[in-house]
Amino acid sequence: MRAAARIRWYGRAGEGQETQVQELYYEDLEPGRVFRGRGRRQVDRDEIKAFAREFDPQPFHLDEAAAEQSLFGGLAASGWHTAAITMQLLVTSEFRIAGGLVGLGVEKLRWPRPTRPGDELRVEVEVLTARESRSRPGYGLVTTKTTTFNQEGAAVQEAVNTMIVPRRETSP
Amino acid sequence: MRAAARIRWYGRAGEGQETQVQELYYEDLEPGRVFRGRGRRQVDRDEIKAFAREFDPQPFHLDEAAAEQSLFGGLAASGWHTAAITMQLLVTSEFRIAGGLVGLGVEKLRWPRPTRPGDELRVEVEVLTARESRSRPGYGLVTTKTTTFNQEGAAVQEAVNTMIVPRRETSP
Repeated sequence: MRAAARIRWYGRAGEGQETQVQELYYEDLEPGRVFRGRGRRQVDRDEIKAFAREFDPQPFHLDEAAAEQSLFGGLAASGWHTAAITMQLLVTSEFRIAGGLVGLGVEKLRWPRPTRPGDELRVEVEVLTARESRSRPGYGLVTTKTTTFNQEGAAVQEAVNTMIVPRRETSP
Repeated sequence: MRAAARIRWYGRAGEGQETQVQELYYEDLEPGRVFRGRGRRQVDRDEIKAFAREFDPQPFHLDEAAAEQSLFGGLAASGWHTAAITMQLLVTSEFRIAGGLVGLGVEKLRWPRPTRPGDELRVEVEVLTARESRSRPGYGLVTTKTTTFNQEGAAVQEAVNTMIVPRRETSP
C-alpha cells in the first residue's frame, strides 16, 4: 500500500487484537489488485435459523427435515444471510475504504452453493475497474468482484459491486 | 390466478389474520404480470442499529451524529438490511412460489435511497421473462423485478432476480 495513505488502528474480526490497517483511496484501487480478508466467521445452525425466522422464513432455512426434502438437500443459510455475513467480513477486513464502504449497487450476485451449518467463511476482493466520477468530483467509481469462500475453498457467493470511493488528492 | 393452482392457507405479514394464498407455478408467471404485496414492515432505529452491529458496522448505520456527517446525511439502514427485509416481505406475500422462493442469482440490485428509521416498506414484483430450464426438466427460470417502496411510494431498492420455479404439469 502507498505510504501516503492515512493510517488508523482497528480491531479485526476473529483476531482479538489491534491490527494496523490503512484507509484506501481511489488511487489505491488499481484494476487487478486483490485483497484477501484475514477475518473468518463461522456460521452455526442456530444463527441460520434465527436469520431465516426474521428475514427468510422458508422450510429449507428453518428445519432440517424439510430441508432434506428440498432442492438444497439439507439445512442451508438464506442467500441474504451469506450476503450480510460477507458485508461484515468486508467491513472488518483490511479492505477499508476512506469514508466507509458505500455501495452504489450490485451488478451480479450468485450463490454457487449454500452456506451450511458449521461453515467458516472468508472473503477476497478483486478490483475490476476504476473510473473518476463525473457527477461527484473528488470521487471515483470502483467495481469489484467479491468472492466468499467456505473452509474448503469453495465459493458460496460471488458478487460484482460498484462503490463510491474518495480520491486522495481532493480529500480534506 | 388460475383455478388449477393448489390452494393453501397462510398468515400474511402485518394483517394478523389467515388469508387465502395460491401457490404459483411456472405457468402462472407470465411476463408483465405484477404482484403487489399487501404486507408492510416498519423499520425502527434500534433494528437498523442492531442489524448494522452484526453485519455492517459502519458509523452511518450505527450512530446518528456520525451519519449526519456522512454521504447519507442521517441514520440509514444497511442496504443488506433493506434486501433482507425485502426477502421477508416477498416470502410472506401472495407471491408464493410452489416449493419455495429459490433464487439462482441477482442480476442487479440498486438502493436509490436509504431506508430510514420509521420507514414502512412494501414490495411489488413484476415478471420480466420466463423460460423453461434445459438442465432441470420440470422447472422454469423466471426473471423478475422486485421493487421495495417506502411509505411515500419512493423506491428504496430495485432488484432483478432469477428464480427456479416448478412447472405445474410435471409436478407431483
